[in-house]
This record gives sequence, structure tokens and C-alpha cells, in this order.
Amino acid sequence: MAEKIFSINHSDASCGARTGTLVLPHGTVSTPVFMPVGTNATVKALTREDLAEIGFEIILSNTYHLYLRPGTEVIGAAGSLHRFMNWDRNILTDSGGFQVFSLPQFRKITDAGVRFRSHIDGSYHELTPEKVVEIQTTLNSDIQMQLDVCSDWGIDEKSARKALDTTDLWLGRAKRAWDEAAEKGYRGKLFAIVQGNFYRNLRTRSAETVIEADTPGIAIGGLSVGEPYDVFREYLAFTAALLPREKPRYVMGIGTPEYILDAIEQGIDMFDCVFPTRTGRNGHVFTRRGTFALKKAENRLDFGPIDAECQCKVCRQYSRAYLRHLFKTQEILCSMLASYHNLYFLHDLVLHARNAIEQDGFADFKKSFLSRYKEKEA
Amino acid sequence: MAEKIFSINHSDASCGARTGTLVLPHGTVSTPVFMPVGTNATVKALTREDLAEIGFEIILSNTYHLYLRPGTEVIGAAGSLHRFMNWDRNILTDSGGFQVFSLPQFRKITDAGVRFRSHIDGSYHELTPEKVVEIQTTLNSDIQMQLDVCSDWGIDEKSARKALDTTDLWLGRAKRAWDEAAEKGYRGKLFAIVQGNFYRNLRTRSAETVIEADTPGIAIGGLSVGEPYDVFREYLAFTAALLPREKPRYVMGIGTPEYILDAIEQGIDMFDCVFPTRTGRNGHVFTRRGTFALKKAENRLDFGPIDAECQCKVCRQYSRAYLRHLFKTQEILCSMLASYHNLYFLHDLVLHARNAIEQDGFADFKKSFLSRYKEKEA
Repeated sequence: MAEKIFSINHSDASCGARTGTLVLPHGTVSTPVFMPVGTNATVKALTREDLAEIGFEIILSNTYHLYLRPGTEVIGAAGSLHRFMNWDRNILTDSGGFQVFSLPQFRKITDAGVRFRSHIDGSYHELTPEKVVEIQTTLNSDIQMQLDVCSDWGIDEKSARKALDTTDLWLGRAKRAWDEAAEKGYRGKLFAIVQGNFYRNLRTRSAETVIEADTPGIAIGGLSVGEPYDVFREYLAFTAALLPREKPRYVMGIGTPEYILDAIEQGIDMFDCVFPTRTGRNGHVFTRRGTFALKKAENRLDFGPIDAECQCKVCRQYSRAYLRHLFKTQEILCSMLASYHNLYFLHDLVLHARNAIEQDGFADFKKSFLSRYKEKEA
Repeated sequence: MAEKIFSINHSDASCGARTGTLVLPHGTVSTPVFMPVGTNATVKALTREDLAEIGFEIILSNTYHLYLRPGTEVIGAAGSLHRFMNWDRNILTDSGGFQVFSLPQFRKITDAGVRFRSHIDGSYHELTPEKVVEIQTTLNSDIQMQLDVCSDWGIDEKSARKALDTTDLWLGRAKRAWDEAAEKGYRGKLFAIVQGNFYRNLRTRSAETVIEADTPGIAIGGLSVGEPYDVFREYLAFTAALLPREKPRYVMGIGTPEYILDAIEQGIDMFDCVFPTRTGRNGHVFTRRGTFALKKAENRLDFGPIDAECQCKVCRQYSRAYLRHLFKTQEILCSMLASYHNLYFLHDLVLHARNAIEQDGFADFKKSFLSRYKEKEA
């Protein structure tokens, strides 16, 4: 039996949503939880004080990027990724699989691993399931992901099955490598990944393999890869229902209110996305009535906050008119403030979702939030 | 007699340096003081909390930039520049003269004012001495500068005299406009500017005109415009000696330790420059042993701070190795942290200079600081 790192606090009577607690090496994490992405060992345009102030208990970082720059040697010499970036709470790292498979340049998958060229300097590298465990162990990731084969929306079943065969093979090897690392004192937790593209039989088979591997947590991969929204929802619900209730469930790469609320409703506990920070840097901000672009002319003389109901330090201190000015003058402060607000907004959304779940009212909360969120502003 | 806004606390027995206090509408300012530059109503890559935490009591902003973007109407509607950018301490604004005269595009100076084309969209604008007072009054600047004619290093005496004639003419008109604004309740203070290029007779004449105008403070303009360092020092000393002891003296556009310490030694009370933030964004940082580039390879595995003696939050939390990584990955956090450190460093330098002056030890302090600063690191 895998070590138990997750306990359910309350399951909503109105749907599959639940609140819970993850116990990890760098502290406990209340779920459901949105994890901001710190690709290069920094959540873009935010300080660690900002992240702690908002209340994040866990962030995500990218193994692929850190492996290439600054390199495992540098982070290992610092002692851990936490020490390197001075973040003393939890860090989840992905396996690098998604990045490698998104590379425009050369990549070659064999049963042994994946050979690829760096997007930075074109140099050749190889990642294997074992090496990916080793890198994440050096980072001292609190949660690490197995290397998997990602596949696109729209591929045929044969290709999807081949990708899954490799993913399954790699899971066994990752598990053995992780067991060995744990024996040497590493305390981070391995999550297996359910793949299977958009084929129910493959998703079912993958879930069975993953359950059999009995890792401390389970991720649902291969969603939000270009499929229509309805297909995303269908496969999210289908896959989530295959998974054991008692394990923490993580869906990778979702970061809009609609997707997050859908995931929570299906009993997903963890999610991450670059969306709130990337869209913030592009001058788009969340409000309870949908997103808007800071640059639009009607903000020119609007001295109200981004969102009058938001309690974040940006909304309490700065006007839309000022933020529009910062955006138009391409000031770094615009990226800083918009990213902060967007992350605060999602964190706050998840806090409210947790409260609603505790009161068996998540389904109503979701409906009410989205009906306002999808209204156009007057 | 002009309103007295400045009192000298102590004059150093070893040189011309002095400590003092400026009393301004948004609080008192201890001098000597370095003012960070917030061109577009933000000190680049820093929050107002950062500035307050470092201890800045006054910042500078640029009339030319704010006039073009977001425009006087927007800041006027916000109530003031302070309210627009949410900075409740003092703001000094320049007159826009320096920016206009640095424009690569069309500009035309007449006795009436200066006609120029915007660097943003090529549109035509005209600034007059009166209009510049009016704009800065709308900004509610705590200290505003007269419109002046800047001239380059190396021009002939005839051209320098012509520029000075116009500057003198404009001073009278600025003074009358400012007197009228003050009668209507504006509480900001006007500073006249000594020009005269690198001609002693013109500098002397300019100082006489400026003294006669009896503004609350006096700026020395037309230095640090491309002249050799020795010429800068010569004309700084020459001009400073012409000015009344009891008025605050401001030298525009200096921001390296060497120049700042020279200015303090000559009894200059105020200075500003974009240098510490611009150089920070370019990955260069100050240390007590000189500046260095974050990107250099020897920082790769250096887990020490930028400057072991610096007490700033960057040096207390982050390593050279991490900062190098942030620089190489072009992360915004690098600009944020390097700018913070550089401003903290200059602020701290000025604090130490004040202490040295109070103990009649400025000359020794300067010598000792610069001997280490100019050493190359081992």
C-alpha cells in the first residue's frame, strides 16, 4: 500500500466535489487547490512574498526547463529547488514529458526514453523514466510526476494505444526508481498519470494500470490539448469516475474559472496553469463578471478597481485608469500587478469553492458564479 | 523672500557637504537625498511598498512623459499624480525640457516656447514656461522645475548665451505663473535652474538671475551631458560655490556612487538618475567593491549574496547563482530584484554619507568608500 498523503475532509452531497488535506514534506495543502506555475524557478513577475501573502501552499515548476537551465548540477549544489529559489513551501514538478512533446524541433520516442533537442541551443538530450525521477529527486520536489507520452487530440486509436503502452512501461520503471530514491531518504511523492487520449477503452486500461501501481497520487493527463470543451468535460468526468476516491487527483494545465469549477465538480483536487499569469502579462484580468482587457479605451478615466469585490492589494490600491496607463507604457509594474490580481482571484475562487463544498452547496455555487462570470459587463 | 523650505542640520567641517531637512507638502525629506526616477508614474519594476520599505521620501517623475501619456486630463481627473499612482510621499517633476531637447525628431525653440513632435505618435505639441507650470500644478508636484533650454557639451559661447537668454526669460514667466498657482492654493515649490553650459561667465550670470528670482530651491542643470568627468567636477564645484548656502541645491541626472559623492562634497542636497534601475534591468548590480554583471559565468555556482554587507531583502534572500539564472532566462523577477537592490544600495550609501557629515568625516568617508568601490573584486 502506498503511503497515505491525502485525507478527505468533506464530500459535497450535491456532486462529486470534495475538500481535503494533502500532507507533504513542506507542509499541508488544503484542497481543492490551484497551483501557480513557476516555470524557471519563479512565478513570473511575482515575489515569494506575494505568493505567501496570497496564501499559496504549493507551486509548480517545470523539470524540462530547470534541467536545461540552470541545470540539475546548479540546483543540486543549492541543496534543493526550494533553497535555490527561496520558497519554503511545497513544489510539484512535472516530468518534462509535456514540454518535450510540444517541441517544434526533433524528438524521438523509444521504449528506452525520449531523445530531443533543446529549444535554447539545439543541443541533444535524452530523458528516461529513471532520469526524470532522479532529476526531480535532486530538485527535492514534494510531488513528482512520472515521465509519460502525451498525445494530441485527433490521433487514431492505434497511435493512442502505442503512446499508452510506452506510458505504462515507463510508469513501472519510474515507480522502481522512486522506490529506490525513497529508500535513500527522498521524501517527495510520485504521481502516476492516466493517459489514453480520447478513447474510453484506453482511458479505462490506463486507470487500471495506474491504480495497480498504487502511487500516492494520480494525475489525469492528456486533457485540455485542443479538444472541444464538451469533449474535455466528457473525458474528465469519465476518467475521474475510474479513480479511487481516497487518492488525490490532479488535472494538469487548467486555469480558467470554467475549467477549474468543472474539475472540482468531478472530484479533482489539484490543478495548475500558466493562464492567469500569462494573460495578466498580456493585460487581461479576471473579474467576477468575466475578463477584460486593461487597454480598452473605456478604462481611461475609470478610477475604480479591476473588481470592486476583490480584496487583493491591487484592487484596494490601484485604478483601472492607472493599470491601463501602465499597460500602454509597457511598464513591468503592469505585469506584476495584473499577475498578482489574477492569481489572487483564482485562489479566492477556490477558497469560496471549498466553503461551498463544506456546506454541500458546490453545485449551486458553481452555477451562480458562472452565470455572473459569463454575463457581459454593462 | 521665498518661503523657506530647507534647513541645514549640520555642515561638515572637512568639506562643503551638509545635512538638512526639506519641508514639503507630502512630508519632510532628509538630505542629501537620492531620488529614484518614476518616468511613467512608476519606478520601473518596483512597487510603492518597495520604495517605502527602502525609505524613499521623495521620487521623481517626468512631466514630458506624463503629459503625453496618460495626459494631464487623466491625472487631473485622478486628483493628482500621487493619487493616480498611489504614492503618498513627495514627488518632484522635471520640466520636460531635457526630454524635448533630447528628441531625435523635430523641435523648435522660440522665445514663446518649444514646439516638438511626440516620440510616441509624431503628433505636434507646444510647451511654454506657463504651460509647464500648469501641467506640474495639475500633477500637484511637491517640487516643480522651470522650463529651461538644455545645451550640449561642446557648443560655442554664442549658442550657449542664446540658450541661457531664453532660459532666463522663461524663468521670469515660470515664476509669475507659479505665483498665480500658489495664490489659488497650489502648495508645490518651484525650483529655478542654473544653466550656462561650460562657460564660467555664463554660469555666473545664470546664478545671479536665479538668485534674484528667489525660488524656494535651485537646480544646477546642464551637467552630466557628455562632458569629461573632470569638467563635470570643475563646473559642479564652480556653480555650487555661486549659490546661497541656505537654499536646497539639486543636481539633475547623477546616479553613480562617484558622482553622488562628488555632489555631496560640493554641498549638493538632491540628485536623481535612472541609472540604478536601468542598469539593474540590464543585469548589473552595485556592490561595495564595484558593480558586476549577473550573467558572468563565475556566478553560476556562487550561493552568496550580491553584497555580503548589504542588508536589503534581495541580499538576505537570494544568491548570485539564482539571480544569474533569472537574468539568463530573462525573468521579470530579475529586473525586480536587481532594481530593488541597486536603489537600496544608493539609499544606504546616502544614509552613511549623512552620518559621516554629522561627524565631520565626509571627506574620509568618501575616500574610504571609493577606494574599495574602485578595487576590482578578487
